Amino acid sequence: DNEFSFSDHSHRRFNPLTDSWVLCSPHRAKRPWLGRVEEAPVEQRPEYDPECYLCPGNKRATGAQNEKYTSTFVFPNDYAAVHASQPDCTASDIEQVAGKNASSELFRVQSTRGQCSVVCFSPRHDLTLPELSLDEICDVVRAWKSIYTRLSDDPKINYVQIFENKGSMMGCSNPHPHGQVWALSEIPSEPAKEIASLKKFNQRHCSESPDVCVLCSYVKAEESNAAASESTNRVVLQNESFMAIVPFWAVWPFETMIVAKSHISNINQLNDQQTRDLAQVMQGLTCRYDNLFQCSFPYSMGLHQSPTASHPDAACCHLHLHFYPPLLRNSTVRKFLVGFEMMAEPQRDLTAEQAAARLRALSSIHYKHS
Amino acid sequence: DNEFSFSDHSHRRFNPLTDSWVLCSPHRAKRPWLGRVEEAPVEQRPEYDPECYLCPGNKRATGAQNEKYTSTFVFPNDYAAVHASQPDCTASDIEQVAGKNASSELFRVQSTRGQCSVVCFSPRHDLTLPELSLDEICDVVRAWKSIYTRLSDDPKINYVQIFENKGSMMGCSNPHPHGQVWALSEIPSEPAKEIASLKKFNQRHCSESPDVCVLCSYVKAEESNAAASESTNRVVLQNESFMAIVPFWAVWPFETMIVAKSHISNINQLNDQQTRDLAQVMQGLTCRYDNLFQCSFPYSMGLHQSPTASHPDAACCHLHLHFYPPLLRNSTVRKFLVGFEMMAEPQRDLTAEQAAARLRALSSIHYKHS
Ligand SMILES: O=P(O)(O)O[C@H]1O[C@H](CO)[C@@H](O)[C@H](O)[C@H]1O
Ligand SMILES: O=P(O)(O)O[C@H]1O[C@H](CO)[C@@H](O)[C@H](O)[C@H]1O
Repeated sequence: DNEFSFSDHSHRRFNPLTDSWVLCSPHRAKRPWLGRVEEAPVEQRPEYDPECYLCPGNKRATGAQNEKYTSTFVFPNDYAAVHASQPDCTASDIEQVAGKNASSELFRVQSTRGQCSVVCFSPRHDLTLPELSLDEICDVVRAWKSIYTRLSDDPKINYVQIFENKGSMMGCSNPHPHGQVWALSEIPSEPAKEIASLKKFNQRHCSESPDVCVLCSYVKAEESNAAASESTNRVVLQNESFMAIVPFWAVWPFETMIVAKSHISNINQLNDQQTRDLAQVMQGLTCRYDNLFQCSFPYSMGLHQSPTASHPDAACCHLHLHFYPPLLRNSTVRKFLVGFEMMAEPQRDLTAEQAAARLRALSSIHYKHS
Repeated sequence: DNEFSFSDHSHRRFNPLTDSWVLCSPHRAKRPWLGRVEEAPVEQRPEYDPECYLCPGNKRATGAQNEKYTSTFVFPNDYAAVHASQPDCTASDIEQVAGKNASSELFRVQSTRGQCSVVCFSPRHDLTLPELSLDEICDVVRAWKSIYTRLSDDPKINYVQIFENKGSMMGCSNPHPHGQVWALSEIPSEPAKEIASLKKFNQRHCSESPDVCVLCSYVKAEESNAAASESTNRVVLQNESFMAIVPFWAVWPFETMIVAKSHISNINQLNDQQTRDLAQVMQGLTCRYDNLFQCSFPYSMGLHQSPTASHPDAACCHLHLHFYPPLLRNSTVRKFLVGFEMMAEPQRDLTAEQAAARLRALSSIHYKHS
């Protein structure tokens, strides 16, 4: 055939948030798979596991004892990647690793401080986020809000990264439903890249309107694309305040982004209704994920928002959550972002539109509950 | 204690090739691991497997039959991510996915062409790169040279990415020793980023000397650092022409880079001695990798070099190979670059100096041969 087709022919798409490309080869989904087959996630767990260091009332490795919590529970990570206090790093310390005549351009290094916390989503060892009630997910969002607010007020903290690794495939070391918060003195690379893109876009367009924003414009465009035709519809679900969408530039097979439909800079700014709306979209999306291959769908997810509430770049930030799930074909065959992807460019085997259509067709009710 | 120590305290290091940071938390290596335990790689394979689509004389999925090859063997990938010919992509095709009123800034897309090949390293199904003889590894480098030269002459090809995924943990779908070549009409993101950094560094310093280069300067600095003291020594092994080093800014636990010690832009420029020197460093490095945990060490590796021999940016490029191996603690516990790493910044659990010292202490003779 002589017609170009996005679901058959190779193309690249550009991510305006991170300023990078993804190679899309939709016909590759048809190749046979003889590679690694993952173990299907274990689905049977007790409500309470006496060996679990996250269950209520249990002892942790460091000897601390968990509260007998009944909702969410936040505590300091016992193996934190950054600490609130450590000695200062001097020029002579740097010489110890970088060498005496080290060019400061080739051997750039800085010490970094921060705090790491763990957020248990529920006392129940056997549940996961999509299996919680809407009220319980609201509690999770409220727990994030209060951590963000508290850390945001700490003058030594400049960025609060809230995230969840779900499933052992994504390096999660305990199936008890939980996420983490790593707060740092420096703005890490990914949010820094996004903030730079948001600012540049705003500068390019501020003559049109002073508060133009990549994500505000993107949400508006995708709302009308969704209404216009199936072939331009990347929305999975939405409500008044939030939209879950497979971004035009998605990398992971079923990657999505939950994005605020108005210009909200951080979770702290969410009112009660918006908090509930976020919880509802999170619930609907993660239920569809589990329903896709009828398994507990692994992913890494994280919030991107303003560094801290009072940071000079806060106003340009636009609250959104990324979900990066690895599964490709079924509950045991994943996509590997390896050789070509690491050395050259991320590559995907289906289009964003195909992924969105499949997620949209699923129910928002969890398969275990229906 | 009140002294800052790079092997105890959190810090960030900067990668001048990709213009990005890595968070280093060396004390994290001490945390207990209850997460995923990988299956140890299967070590027993027959010399010839009648079911393997890469073994000499066998039929492939598409019906083509492999030559009865006795050294290396190159053939077109049956499930190529890009093809040499496909229809052109028109503005109205783009409207089909991007929508009618799509802002060209938010919905950037381009069609892309190319060629994908598979390079079998040896007819023997049971061997891997480190188990081949030096002469056989020289044959592999020569096979890469001839592919690079041939594709480099194709006016529709602008980048030739040579890479290997080794081990099922790195998405490799067949244990028969092989690598791949994906050649594209566009320069992919990673090499594009590196080329931009190489050019900027050169522009900043060209008044000192017209052909100053990040990697030339880095190699020189690390040669004297290696001689100066154990604490600044990141070199694993080297010879006249090539150095294998854990870069100051390594992300993966035992990440290394093999870098040309003089300003060579691509493999095509290697003379016979340099070809042999590259093969020798590849052999020594991959043997040490296998020796580290006494297993077939998984990794993704790839060559970065000039886009094509005649590309306008060819002269500033400096030939190097990246090795990204995932194992962290032993043959079954890997590092996961997930939640925080995906959302915020790559994070590592040991220093580059610690990794280099461990690799340096090992023998260059493969444990199966000694
Ligand atoms: O081409 P293969 O070996 O089938 O596939 C492997 O390498 C490719 C290139 O890095 C990746 O896109 C695939 O995800 C991976 O499984
Ligand atoms: O903190 P955990 O759950 O022990 O560890 C997990 O998440 C971290 C943050 O993304 C990663 O650095 C680890 O590699 C991963 O195993």
